[in-house]
Amino acid sequence: MNRSELVNQIKTKRSFLCVGLDTDLKKVPQHILNDEDPIFAFNKAIIDATADYCVSYKPNLAFYEAFGVKGLISFEKTIKYLKENYPNHFIVADAKRGDIGNTSAMYARTFFDEYDVDSLTVAPYMGEDSVTPFLGYKDKWVILLALTSNKGSHDFQLTEDKDGERLFEKVLRTSQQWGDKENMMYVVGATQGRMFEDIRKIVPDHFLLVPGVGAQGGSLEEVCKYGMNADCGLLVNSSRGIIYASNGEDFATVAAEKAKELQIQMDAELKKHGI
Amino acid sequence: MNRSELVNQIKTKRSFLCVGLDTDLKKVPQHILNDEDPIFAFNKAIIDATADYCVSYKPNLAFYEAFGVKGLISFEKTIKYLKENYPNHFIVADAKRGDIGNTSAMYARTFFDEYDVDSLTVAPYMGEDSVTPFLGYKDKWVILLALTSNKGSHDFQLTEDKDGERLFEKVLRTSQQWGDKENMMYVVGATQGRMFEDIRKIVPDHFLLVPGVGAQGGSLEEVCKYGMNADCGLLVNSSRGIIYASNGEDFATVAAEKAKELQIQMDAELKKHGI
Repeated sequence: MNRSELVNQIKTKRSFLCVGLDTDLKKVPQHILNDEDPIFAFNKAIIDATADYCVSYKPNLAFYEAFGVKGLISFEKTIKYLKENYPNHFIVADAKRGDIGNTSAMYARTFFDEYDVDSLTVAPYMGEDSVTPFLGYKDKWVILLALTSNKGSHDFQLTEDKDGERLFEKVLRTSQQWGDKENMMYVVGATQGRMFEDIRKIVPDHFLLVPGVGAQGGSLEEVCKYGMNADCGLLVNSSRGIIYASNGEDFATVAAEKAKELQIQMDAELKKHGI
Repeated sequence: MNRSELVNQIKTKRSFLCVGLDTDLKKVPQHILNDEDPIFAFNKAIIDATADYCVSYKPNLAFYEAFGVKGLISFEKTIKYLKENYPNHFIVADAKRGDIGNTSAMYARTFFDEYDVDSLTVAPYMGEDSVTPFLGYKDKWVILLALTSNKGSHDFQLTEDKDGERLFEKVLRTSQQWGDKENMMYVVGATQGRMFEDIRKIVPDHFLLVPGVGAQGGSLEEVCKYGMNADCGLLVNSSRGIIYASNGEDFATVAAEKAKELQIQMDAELKKHGI
């Protein structure tokens, strides 16, 4: 999916919600466990219930890999189901990969050629040649970690260099030599509040993938106030707050309600910004 | 495997070689492709041929994931084969994972409980809570990226903060509050030469996993000169230089010769250092 298609989806659906598919068999409703492939059954129900309210899905690879071969089959089925039934939803494979050039090239082939997802989260620590192998694919995106939502983001990402530039700012600035707003986004945690102002000074036009609303405590209003741009420029993710809102038989209905609540808030935010 | 067992293996076998299983079906000998599971068939032949000359194997997950479910089955079979037939070899899953706490916990469960490998490479960008979930497992290791072997290592890892401390040095220093020499190692590229001196000032006793000898141009002699400690403290990896030394029917024999060449050099280096 290219940038203008994504922006169109956001404007049409009045939503910039990304639903995180962090599917954990310890947390899904008991009755789902009777299914032959409970992970896929859960995902399918969540997707069918929430698709109207979101523009994107983000399966987190860790949750699939945890079940080895079976988990990977569930992941593949989920991607296939999305592509066949909801081809206008932007798929983020949240895998946080990044390795030396020939290895990153293997990961790129896997996620973009084999799974054919729209985007992949990538860690920047290893620098240019660990990121650029992901950038040669038409309408595919790198989503580079910049300022993450967790407590540990303070350990290294905020370290200032001699000129007062913080590491996440250096990542934002440097990586613009590798890709542009048509093939690169950045992960910025919703918990980072006013830091979005500093981020928008460096990447005014890029999309930001924003985890941390909900379970992690970030505020949607604050994210929009400081982070939204003329094309919206945000994909705000919620995982646990939607998919585990109920663990009864009504889990999909409740997930839809939670997604709709966010969509309504997002519609209001878009209007506030004249979008 | 714990630290003293690893040191014993090195002293007994007179080798600190780690063979990287970056198994790429585009590079394996043609005749292997006729096998039902060519990745595993190749690995098995390489392992049987080189086990006497090395103390460790390092499958790189990217190369297995590239083949989806089939690749993951080959990975699982390789780990099982190693554990059953060569239980004294230290297994590194080279996956460079690292995510927010609950996700890292999922990865830890996958690699340490399910696959039961000895160690996992982890990226430090997301800080403490992305790394510590991997540290609670008995005789299991985090191998944290510090100063990698690739060109892109210069982009961020060498950035100096206000006090002149470089990012990789901060990673080494800070992470010692999370783990110790019994459960944490560091990745330092063989291409980094005298930087090993600076690294040993911060982590004199830790093991270092050193990729980059061979195809990437690093020098074993230099690595040992500046990086070896009283317990050896090094696992030097070679992947392409061993496993693709021949792509004929003699590939395993030639891989064994290459591994043996390195083992002989390593024996000499150990003696030079009184080990």
